[in-house]
Amino acid sequence: MRALWLENNKIDLRDIQQPRKQNEALIKIRKAGICSTDLELVKGYYPYTGVLGHEFVGEVASLTPSPSSEGSGESLRVGDRVVGDINAVCGACEQCLNGRPTHCENRTVLGIVNRDGVFAEFTQLPTANLHKVPASAPDEMAVFTEPLAAALEIQEQINIKPTDRVLLIGAGRLGQLIAQTLALTGCDLRVVARHKRQQELLSARGIRIIAEEEIQRWRWDVVVEATGSSNGFALARQAIRPRGTLVLKSTYKGEMNVDFSSIVVDEVNIIGSRCGPFEPALRLMEAKQVNPTALIDDEFSLSDGVKAFERAAQSGVLKVLLTP
Amino acid sequence: MRALWLENNKIDLRDIQQPRKQNEALIKIRKAGICSTDLELVKGYYPYTGVLGHEFVGEVASLTPSPSSEGSGESLRVGDRVVGDINAVCGACEQCLNGRPTHCENRTVLGIVNRDGVFAEFTQLPTANLHKVPASAPDEMAVFTEPLAAALEIQEQINIKPTDRVLLIGAGRLGQLIAQTLALTGCDLRVVARHKRQQELLSARGIRIIAEEEIQRWRWDVVVEATGSSNGFALARQAIRPRGTLVLKSTYKGEMNVDFSSIVVDEVNIIGSRCGPFEPALRLMEAKQVNPTALIDDEFSLSDGVKAFERAAQSGVLKVLLTP
Repeated sequence: MRALWLENNKIDLRDIQQPRKQNEALIKIRKAGICSTDLELVKGYYPYTGVLGHEFVGEVASLTPSPSSEGSGESLRVGDRVVGDINAVCGACEQCLNGRPTHCENRTVLGIVNRDGVFAEFTQLPTANLHKVPASAPDEMAVFTEPLAAALEIQEQINIKPTDRVLLIGAGRLGQLIAQTLALTGCDLRVVARHKRQQELLSARGIRIIAEEEIQRWRWDVVVEATGSSNGFALARQAIRPRGTLVLKSTYKGEMNVDFSSIVVDEVNIIGSRCGPFEPALRLMEAKQVNPTALIDDEFSLSDGVKAFERAAQSGVLKVLLTP
Repeated sequence: MRALWLENNKIDLRDIQQPRKQNEALIKIRKAGICSTDLELVKGYYPYTGVLGHEFVGEVASLTPSPSSEGSGESLRVGDRVVGDINAVCGACEQCLNGRPTHCENRTVLGIVNRDGVFAEFTQLPTANLHKVPASAPDEMAVFTEPLAAALEIQEQINIKPTDRVLLIGAGRLGQLIAQTLALTGCDLRVVARHKRQQELLSARGIRIIAEEEIQRWRWDVVVEATGSSNGFALARQAIRPRGTLVLKSTYKGEMNVDFSSIVVDEVNIIGSRCGPFEPALRLMEAKQVNPTALIDDEFSLSDGVKAFERAAQSGVLKVLLTP
């Protein structure tokens, strides 16, 4: 099958063997999305060699449910449209046994850690990872399930009160979905958005923009940092109120220099946030409470995958999709 | 009056004017305690010039309750034994109005920020800051109210579950009090204690010691870092489980280099912790649930204040008291 292969900071289209693990479902990819993590992987942010990609919607090509699987995978049939949790877990380590499967100590991660991804004709995942897509959610919507779930992880971790003043720094691919989900809480949300198109997308949903120079110090109950830059972190640190919660929703290159004494003095709460729950993401899309498809900037065929990556890396571009 | 004065990283005993602000209570110091922050101030950690010291028990020498004061100060009389919150607040800023007085944006802090401290014959505080000391708590116990309150601040901020595995790194002046209060929750507590005397004090209370090399990675629900060293932070970071809470209970010199990506990936919660509630500290001492006096290593008269500081700075020494 054809697949977009990453090796030594270079991607190219290759013909590789179709996956065929006995105990996993085989999924025919319908659409896949390029995410900032994919771009970082190409830059060498993590060491990874293999098929890239982790955002997808596909259909079940073959199914071998294991007796122990307990996910929504149980009721699946060949041909069903599905999305899939990207962490494939052992079910036996301390984290798995304590209800933290996305933190499995032996996990592989789709297109990120020791597991071929979805920029290919087919991919594989344990049946327990799969979630059926409701008929009302077309492919170009369902392909956003994974990043939308990541946005919702914030609310799995902390309580956003309707009366909270919430500042979101960054309105890119993930930032837009975070803005859309945070806005549903009724909180007083302001978003730092650099690009005109980012601002327009937010304004179209009645979400308020704030200019950096208008951000008052010590005034925000919750700050979500979604830029992954040290500037973004510094801005977040200034804005957060004493005893406020600073959510880190993006990874950072290398180490950062941080004044931890001021974090102690202001009793700030810093919380890292990663993968989230798929079912609520699907529910919100089905109920049309979020509109991820507005983020689609371009669509390429898998054979033009290298071009698709070039497009996705352009400044201000939001979602680029791939179709095998 | 005599006072221990800090100026340009040097302390000396001086004769200064007795405090006499009209709208504050005058307190005659009975005993005061030297804390690590005092030692750091002498080293120039914060810029501060004035009378050092913030841990004290004293007696009310004169009282001018302001009509607006709502603290326990209202029922006080001249001669009462008192301890005092170290943050003197405006009552009008955003933090004060939102129930975070210890984070008052215009605060002065006893012996730390723009307010003369307690290593003197007298000190001053707003009446609302004062708390009456129960008769059953002798001076050498009551003088620990402030650091004991700081230890309890952890439980004001996060829920320590009886089933939690809790690791405390550091068993010095503050660490001992943190260990004593955490142990009261019934949690599975282990403490990294470097010095023999620190270990003995813990063992005497049935609190378990753990050697650094025995600390398993990703296993601790809560880690309290009380060393203020980058080594301590690195150890804490390794020990904390995914989605665990890392409490920073000490300030750090300068900036620290931290890998924030791993904090995002492991969804770690880092929370700074500073001043705490006095009344619960007094209740625990009154009920003899804690035993701070075991920490006392030495006692000096105020005139020997410089010697007292030398003693307190010796490796492994816990509490040194001063009596005017």
